[in-house]
Amino acid sequence: MNLNILFKNIKQKESFLCVGLDSCKSKMPKHLLGDPNPVLSFNKAIINSTHHLCVAYKLNLAFYENLGKEGYYILEETLKCIPDNILVIADAKRGDIGNTSEEYAQAFFEKLNFDAITLSPYMGKDTVTPFLKYDNKWSVILALTSNKSASDFQFIKDADGNYLFERVLQEGKRWGTNNNTMFVVGATKSEYIKRVRKIAPNHFLLIPGIGKQGGSLNDVCEIGLNSTCGLLVNSSRAIIYASSDENFAQAAKEEAIKLQREMKRHLKNANLL
Amino acid sequence: MNLNILFKNIKQKESFLCVGLDSCKSKMPKHLLGDPNPVLSFNKAIINSTHHLCVAYKLNLAFYENLGKEGYYILEETLKCIPDNILVIADAKRGDIGNTSEEYAQAFFEKLNFDAITLSPYMGKDTVTPFLKYDNKWSVILALTSNKSASDFQFIKDADGNYLFERVLQEGKRWGTNNNTMFVVGATKSEYIKRVRKIAPNHFLLIPGIGKQGGSLNDVCEIGLNSTCGLLVNSSRAIIYASSDENFAQAAKEEAIKLQREMKRHLKNANLL
Repeated sequence: MNLNILFKNIKQKESFLCVGLDSCKSKMPKHLLGDPNPVLSFNKAIINSTHHLCVAYKLNLAFYENLGKEGYYILEETLKCIPDNILVIADAKRGDIGNTSEEYAQAFFEKLNFDAITLSPYMGKDTVTPFLKYDNKWSVILALTSNKSASDFQFIKDADGNYLFERVLQEGKRWGTNNNTMFVVGATKSEYIKRVRKIAPNHFLLIPGIGKQGGSLNDVCEIGLNSTCGLLVNSSRAIIYASSDENFAQAAKEEAIKLQREMKRHLKNANLL
Repeated sequence: MNLNILFKNIKQKESFLCVGLDSCKSKMPKHLLGDPNPVLSFNKAIINSTHHLCVAYKLNLAFYENLGKEGYYILEETLKCIPDNILVIADAKRGDIGNTSEEYAQAFFEKLNFDAITLSPYMGKDTVTPFLKYDNKWSVILALTSNKSASDFQFIKDADGNYLFERVLQEGKRWGTNNNTMFVVGATKSEYIKRVRKIAPNHFLLIPGIGKQGGSLNDVCEIGLNSTCGLLVNSSRAIIYASSDENFAQAAKEEAIKLQREMKRHLKNANLL
């Protein structure tokens, strides 16, 4: 999926919501645990009730790797259930040297046919370039993450006063284009989105940290929206675990609707609809 | 496996060699491709011919993830073939927020029963602490990698003149102890091993980049050896692809012997044998 189609989908659905399928047996409704494959049943129900409200799904690989071979099967089957016009992001945070990154790129872009993958920039350009060779696929580079210890290194300042996350943005935007590269920017640090937009005004940003992680959608939109929307705002736990009862899929839908309505308002305010 | 046992194994085998099982169908001997499971046959043969010469195996996950479900099976079966007294490292370079890192820790330390995992430090302490809760397991944190573009970020200097990789060492050594934390330090940058040893004199270093990547074992040993050896030197392609003929396992053994003999000499010179 390229930038034009992504923006078209956003306008059509009046939404830039990404739903995070961080699906975990211990947190899902108990009544599903009797199913032959609870995680897959859960994912199917969530996708069924939210796919018209979101433009992307993000699957954090940790939750699937933890299930071994079965997890790989669930991943494959889940991907089959997601409609074609939705961007599917492997939240894998991979990062390795060139020849190894090529193997990862094949694994995620060819074998599993994800549209996008999150990548850790610590090892530099080598990590990302093998992924950029694929047309209509996206590298989503970690810049500023939403966790507490993001500050351990991401806020280290160089001699010119640039934070490390700003250096990642400066370098990272040179490796590809805004048609194949996005950046992860934590919504809990909305004051820094200004700094991000100074460096990367035209790139899509994947914003985690809305909801349970404490970020504010208003702040993010005021600063982050650009002429092609430029934002994918992710919500995982607040949507998928909205209820632990039999009505969990309906509850997830209602949470997604709340976010989608807010997003519509922001898109209108920015004259994007 | 703890530090004492690792050091005991090193003295017993007169070796601090780690063999990298970056096993890939396209590079392995052609005659194996008729096997029902060529990668597994290849790994078994390599392990069989090298296990008495090395103290660790490192499996880069990219090569197994690229094989999908089958890759997971090969991983499990390969691990079963490795004798108990050998440290088995998942070269996975994972790094995610706390609750997600817990899932990865379970996946690698409980489900697959690896002894160690490589971790990317970009997201800070949260990434590593869930792994440190396991006894007799190791977190191997990327500090200075051996790839070209390592310099994109790892050599950024802070206001006090510390490189980013030095900051990672300074912080990372506080998160755990030298009995559960190692650091990846690229052997192609041996002049920097001095700087590493100033900050982390007692930690084990996992040194990739010997052989095909151009590092020198002499340089590494002169500077890097400490009172418990403190080095695991990895060689992947130079050993496992030493020959593409039917004699590949014997050729791998011969390459491993060459390195083991050099290592023995270095251990003796450092009065560790």
